[in-house]
Amino acid sequence: MRNIRLLIAYDGADFHGWQRQPHARSIQEELEAKIAQITGSRVALHASGRTDAGVHASGQVANFRTECPIPCEGLAKALNDVLPPAIRVRHAEDVPSSFHARYRAKSKTYRYRILQTAICPPFLARYVYHHPYPLDWCRMAKAARLFEGEHDFTSFAGDDHSEETIRKDSENSNVRRIFSSRLELREKLALLVYEVRGSGFLHHMVRNIVGTLLEVGSGKRSPEDIPAILEARDRSKAGPTAPANGLCLVKVEY
Amino acid sequence: MRNIRLLIAYDGADFHGWQRQPHARSIQEELEAKIAQITGSRVALHASGRTDAGVHASGQVANFRTECPIPCEGLAKALNDVLPPAIRVRHAEDVPSSFHARYRAKSKTYRYRILQTAICPPFLARYVYHHPYPLDWCRMAKAARLFEGEHDFTSFAGDDHSEETIRKDSENSNVRRIFSSRLELREKLALLVYEVRGSGFLHHMVRNIVGTLLEVGSGKRSPEDIPAILEARDRSKAGPTAPANGLCLVKVEY
Repeated sequence: MRNIRLLIAYDGADFHGWQRQPHARSIQEELEAKIAQITGSRVALHASGRTDAGVHASGQVANFRTECPIPCEGLAKALNDVLPPAIRVRHAEDVPSSFHARYRAKSKTYRYRILQTAICPPFLARYVYHHPYPLDWCRMAKAARLFEGEHDFTSFAGDDHSEETIRKDSENSNVRRIFSSRLELREKLALLVYEVRGSGFLHHMVRNIVGTLLEVGSGKRSPEDIPAILEARDRSKAGPTAPANGLCLVKVEY
Repeated sequence: MRNIRLLIAYDGADFHGWQRQPHARSIQEELEAKIAQITGSRVALHASGRTDAGVHASGQVANFRTECPIPCEGLAKALNDVLPPAIRVRHAEDVPSSFHARYRAKSKTYRYRILQTAICPPFLARYVYHHPYPLDWCRMAKAARLFEGEHDFTSFAGDDHSEETIRKDSENSNVRRIFSSRLELREKLALLVYEVRGSGFLHHMVRNIVGTLLEVGSGKRSPEDIPAILEARDRSKAGPTAPANGLCLVKVEY
């Protein structure tokens, strides 16, 4: 039995997230259907983690098992021929049977983009959060750094207590390690880019962090509030969930 | 009665073109409905020219007459608040009553983008024509230049004999003046960009020119064939119509 790893990119705007579900179009369902069409048998596709409705990915990783003999390059090409242009297989490769896209992930990197121009070009509207109000990005950058390290992220966990990403031995804990959490301004584009790399993320965690950073940027909170918000382990102490369309899963490391 | 000129951008992917029509969502209908909602009365919105289903615009121009007293800046803002993100009013201004977006247009500029990467990123798929096959862009650039000047474009006119763009005294003629017709390679992006500026364009004319340039690039035709194709005044002598999604109306000059 082969175990095949796919590197996948998708425009999540027109999908109800990664996870297969009744009465809604999901990335997983679309991919599983096309893999079945090409390989001739049904497969279960395991992603590094599910992404919510409207969230994008440039570097999602998923794996599936198959007896199909088609070499990986041909498989990727055949899949791209039948998939909608909103989903692309960037790469396919055979991996050892022990590989599992979710359980073997060591880190994931998400990027969140906030566009500050007065008017959002229609060609970017699906891929950025348009926020044309003044933001003190230096304060936001300072606050962003305070998420680095190991913390209990209960204050930033979605109401839905499922796990967005990686389950480890920390299965029933809200403690996650953030390796890097940085916000930068791309001045020419009037674009704020927040990038966070961590061992795993709770459901809505990145968007809840961004919603809190936006409140820091608008002056409603100060960077110094972040440690206390983490300490509180209380969702009501943090900011709102930022919109899905600004978020993109850019990398999964193994 | 005020005469208001709008500078408009839109992502045409989810619309059945500019022109209002039954049972299909058009840019014109969407804008007219929202202008009526804001100004309180129905208006007729005249664009510089219609664009086909799937074609984009970053610089479409349109005008309408109204008694509404809202200043232009507030009007643009109010419209953007109610329009879908796929349509944006970039600017609004009062113009003399003699202004008409279609009849007063002196030139229009279209851009067509061809992406040559092996895989088309999902985030670009709506806005470029993905063509991952070898193309000799130098030949294409040479051929592109041969459209400059005044020519009868019957060989490049769509089956539908309506006018895509500007009607002048040349109303019943297929003669148009092309001021500039250039193709360039943006090597880092593996992107071919064709830009054409002319006095007016027949229906499908830019896409038919691009379809012909693609045949020049693939070696099926040579640049030297272009004068004869123009001369023939026969649609069957030119190449096929390139897909709509690569095309964008970027500028209208008055």
